[in-house]
Amino acid sequence: MAPEIAKTGHVAFQTPDLEETTWFFKDIMGLQETERTDDTVYLRGLRDWTHHTMSLTEGAEGGVEHIAYRTQEPEHVEAFASRFESQGLDVEHLDPGEVRSIGEAILVDAPGGHPILFYYDVEKPEPPGEQRSKLKNRRYNPAVGNRVACRRIDHVHVLDPEGLPLADWFTDEVGMGLNERYQSEDGTFWGWWLAATALPHDIGIHKNDDGPSFHHISYHVDDLQDLWDAADICREYGIAPDGGPGHHAITNADYFYVIDPASDIRIELFAGPGYLNFEPDWEPVDWVKGEIGTELDHQWIGTQYSEQSIPYVDR
Amino acid sequence: MAPEIAKTGHVAFQTPDLEETTWFFKDIMGLQETERTDDTVYLRGLRDWTHHTMSLTEGAEGGVEHIAYRTQEPEHVEAFASRFESQGLDVEHLDPGEVRSIGEAILVDAPGGHPILFYYDVEKPEPPGEQRSKLKNRRYNPAVGNRVACRRIDHVHVLDPEGLPLADWFTDEVGMGLNERYQSEDGTFWGWWLAATALPHDIGIHKNDDGPSFHHISYHVDDLQDLWDAADICREYGIAPDGGPGHHAITNADYFYVIDPASDIRIELFAGPGYLNFEPDWEPVDWVKGEIGTELDHQWIGTQYSEQSIPYVDR
Amino acid sequence: MAPEIAKTGHVAFQTPDLEETTWFFKDIMGLQETERTDDTVYLRGLRDWTHHTMSLTEGAEGGVEHIAYRTQEPEHVEAFASRFESQGLDVEHLDPGEVRSIGEAILVDAPGGHPILFYYDVEKPEPPGEQRSKLKNRRYNPAVGNRVACRRIDHVHVLDPEGLPLADWFTDEVGMGLNERYQSEDGTFWGWWLAATALPHDIGIHKNDDGPSFHHISYHVDDLQDLWDAADICREYGIAPDGGPGHHAITNADYFYVIDPASDIRIELFAGPGYLNFEPDWEPVDWVKGEIGTELDHQWIGTQYSEQSIPYVDR
Amino acid sequence: MAPEIAKTGHVAFQTPDLEETTWFFKDIMGLQETERTDDTVYLRGLRDWTHHTMSLTEGAEGGVEHIAYRTQEPEHVEAFASRFESQGLDVEHLDPGEVRSIGEAILVDAPGGHPILFYYDVEKPEPPGEQRSKLKNRRYNPAVGNRVACRRIDHVHVLDPEGLPLADWFTDEVGMGLNERYQSEDGTFWGWWLAATALPHDIGIHKNDDGPSFHHISYHVDDLQDLWDAADICREYGIAPDGGPGHHAITNADYFYVIDPASDIRIELFAGPGYLNFEPDWEPVDWVKGEIGTELDHQWIGTQYSEQSIPYVDR
Repeated sequence: MAPEIAKTGHVAFQTPDLEETTWFFKDIMGLQETERTDDTVYLRGLRDWTHHTMSLTEGAEGGVEHIAYRTQEPEHVEAFASRFESQGLDVEHLDPGEVRSIGEAILVDAPGGHPILFYYDVEKPEPPGEQRSKLKNRRYNPAVGNRVACRRIDHVHVLDPEGLPLADWFTDEVGMGLNERYQSEDGTFWGWWLAATALPHDIGIHKNDDGPSFHHISYHVDDLQDLWDAADICREYGIAPDGGPGHHAITNADYFYVIDPASDIRIELFAGPGYLNFEPDWEPVDWVKGEIGTELDHQWIGTQYSEQSIPYVDR
Repeated sequence: MAPEIAKTGHVAFQTPDLEETTWFFKDIMGLQETERTDDTVYLRGLRDWTHHTMSLTEGAEGGVEHIAYRTQEPEHVEAFASRFESQGLDVEHLDPGEVRSIGEAILVDAPGGHPILFYYDVEKPEPPGEQRSKLKNRRYNPAVGNRVACRRIDHVHVLDPEGLPLADWFTDEVGMGLNERYQSEDGTFWGWWLAATALPHDIGIHKNDDGPSFHHISYHVDDLQDLWDAADICREYGIAPDGGPGHHAITNADYFYVIDPASDIRIELFAGPGYLNFEPDWEPVDWVKGEIGTELDHQWIGTQYSEQSIPYVDR
Repeated sequence: MAPEIAKTGHVAFQTPDLEETTWFFKDIMGLQETERTDDTVYLRGLRDWTHHTMSLTEGAEGGVEHIAYRTQEPEHVEAFASRFESQGLDVEHLDPGEVRSIGEAILVDAPGGHPILFYYDVEKPEPPGEQRSKLKNRRYNPAVGNRVACRRIDHVHVLDPEGLPLADWFTDEVGMGLNERYQSEDGTFWGWWLAATALPHDIGIHKNDDGPSFHHISYHVDDLQDLWDAADICREYGIAPDGGPGHHAITNADYFYVIDPASDIRIELFAGPGYLNFEPDWEPVDWVKGEIGTELDHQWIGTQYSEQSIPYVDR
Repeated sequence: MAPEIAKTGHVAFQTPDLEETTWFFKDIMGLQETERTDDTVYLRGLRDWTHHTMSLTEGAEGGVEHIAYRTQEPEHVEAFASRFESQGLDVEHLDPGEVRSIGEAILVDAPGGHPILFYYDVEKPEPPGEQRSKLKNRRYNPAVGNRVACRRIDHVHVLDPEGLPLADWFTDEVGMGLNERYQSEDGTFWGWWLAATALPHDIGIHKNDDGPSFHHISYHVDDLQDLWDAADICREYGIAPDGGPGHHAITNADYFYVIDPASDIRIELFAGPGYLNFEPDWEPVDWVKGEIGTELDHQWIGTQYSEQSIPYVDR
């Protein structure tokens, strides 16, 4: 049986200013800190179950060490390793704990050079003391949340000079489904939205001339008002939105983009209806540039994000 | 490979007053009509993709003909049939179209006598004309929605004198996961919440002395305000809430219950955070009566629903 | 005792296409029709008490016949007339019914030539039949509202080549308070927000080189989601937003601007916190261009509206 | 000219446990502390302009020292004093500062013995440092708010054995308008909702056999979700709701009641549409017991509050 992915696990970031970046994601975006070592802070949303969904490590510049996915079964980690090695890909085997809280893992460069981590075992610590909700089916007492209060990791978005080989790799080798794609007027595809789960996407891919890079990590918040409050609070600290609040045509979700000034890490807050795709015979939604007829093309309401991205970096 | 369910498909209801019940679900709850025959009206939510998620057929009393699930693969319908027949269950084979819009299907009595339909092929008609959204990833122009505007079928809830055998059947034979369960102070389980998808549950089961029966169908709406508007509008028509608006401890979702006066069919509007369960090693959340410490026990905010239910009926 | 204004009453519009403009304000914006004559349609929001807050009359072009204010006392109409006549202004006396549903009234040209109607007596018809809410303190059964469902008239905004004389007239002669104003970097004032009520403003005035004209009428909706739904629904009909959804720095309210394509009448949907001003010693908030530090200057979140306006026209 | 009230100013409370009560109103309800003396904590909402709208003073039991109203003009304080003294009421004259932040004031016992303070001069301190919003027309940076974040004082509600004399005093002597009232089936009035502002009420009065007492102070929050979050967070701390979240028939507003366990002070969070009354000829809405036809009588959605109240106490 083919190995499969269960969900997006985390993104391991570097930042040149750990203190400022931690302030941004904790105090402004409302992520919760679960652990802090000499050089790394571990964060998660109020409804994330695992140890962290974002790590921030002191580094020379803002960048991404890897994007991590949790597999459906423990043995899928090794099955993915075999598959990738048989295809001639370089597979690095990591011992338990090499990535904090994560068991045995493999790190592979996806087509174009995107560093992807696969793992199954992961720690799921409870919040300490009064931070723990009395409700067993959620993590945190909502009193710990600020007005933004990111709830759970939603998806990532990357840029790639080719795009198609990376999208094909995620469907053919990793087993994701293709939910939506976008083509230029000349028929060239330049965007793909793929999912292993019922979400509109677990990873988005855009073609971009500048080499493989990371565009944003997205966290889900409860509703439109949370996006609004996030934009409002960012304004108070002189942090301009990078796009929105608005509503995507593709994915049909409400969004707000903002970039941490200290690290250039972009976060997208994601909310609103979107859709959950439970149909086993979903046909990819094909969008053609210009057909939506809005000035922002594939946007429906609100302003577009910028093309700024951050590189992949070695730990 | 074991057959699997992809999603809840529809519930086929009977009502003694087709006109009144159709008014309630269309004009008040905001479901959309996709087809009407001599004796049956077919309805769906604004974001349901398939032909219908609720059918209403003229009958002697309010009741349920069957609960239908869509399988993950076409061949799973036959695989389920083989499995159930080998266990000595009565399996009725239905030709395409015997259930309107549905292909080949099987109807089986689950333990306790709950009539469950399995199918894969299904029609997915577009809304007509201006009702069609310009956005390809959603069905309806939001202008067709009233203030309530049910979005998509979410789950069903049934009552059963035993409970456990039915819950075990859904996990062991149908392949659902057990997300949450509830036990009395003496350790007897009396509630199970099971899912084939990432939803908090696709089916809920309660122990009840009155024999197997159907408690409610649930539709998802966008937010708390929609629950509020539904309660408000029902009041205007003299229709009292059956429970809520409130917030469940179990499933961690916002809800509103109301019963169609003409048919006794109960609908639960479901909204709010709830949770999406993407964890492959989810451990069932065990609730024990009294531990939450609210006067309504397993409720967190708001009032409880009643025990009224409707029977299963033959077509 | 000085005559005073109680509230904004209505705006009398002309449109070159009565059918299309009525469709826009009724079917899209969710205003309710209370009466229709040969050439005029009378509309109001779901929580407006009086006969209408907007009238649409067939005319050569989109324009405004007058802006109407209700006085605090019946005798204030005549008191305003005396005051204005003693200042040499042209005051037209209208008999009851000359403006449908309105009693005795006076029409005066405010500085710059803005036609302002003052009246006290007005009809307050109940909605017919099932449209009537069972709650005596609101007009309409919420079931009559669409997803946008404008609730009540909020304010108007006009453009004027001078601005200051008009603003002074509204404070000194009409008795409004000055809540906020905006000045260019050279200290020239170009915007005033004035209120007779506790609202952030009942009338806004902008300096503009093109002569006195009408910028927008604003209706209040319940929350941010209504603004979003309005933008979404307009998109479905190919009607682009004129600005927002966004959040004003001035007035501190959420907004969405859209222009009726048939008449060029701009409506602003107004929602969110804003503020209610109950302080009897309110000092005008002075904004200076550039000080907010946002790219849109006096906007806080979202995009700016356009400068397009419609003229004043004779009936 | 008759003296008039501009707005509800504050309520001066006593509590037997200053620390616990301060925790409840600051950490749970989200009020902001502006000053703290040896025995008193001063609090206000995020959009309150004056020094405080609630004071908490250490005392023998939970109680109310006085309810304070701000007058429309400085000279109205003395005008009220003259009026009340000429009617034989006991009027206590307070020097500036006797009530912290308040100028010259008078304290009078309204019919039944409710201690009412009238004042005009009041301090309006800015929040310190980063707590100050960059927007000049609001007080606080929204980042200081928790998930509940009470915005502004809305109204108070008192109990009185007679009711009618107190209601008449507020209309005839204090100049409020009567917006709504409620009568038993025998025609006896037992509830009055009165306003000096455009709010549905500034004070509510219920008949109650237990002597004059204080039922609740109400703060406005932005929307229904804030009520929900408040109920959710209270549950986490084992504090049961005293009523709601729900929707009032009278005032047409959304509400949530909860009682500070340490002091028995009840707070009502108030949100949602309600109405703003700008009509100068408003006729009181008369409700008759039973006519609404809901099981909770004058409630529309949700559960009723309790009758518990706190006494008036001397400082």
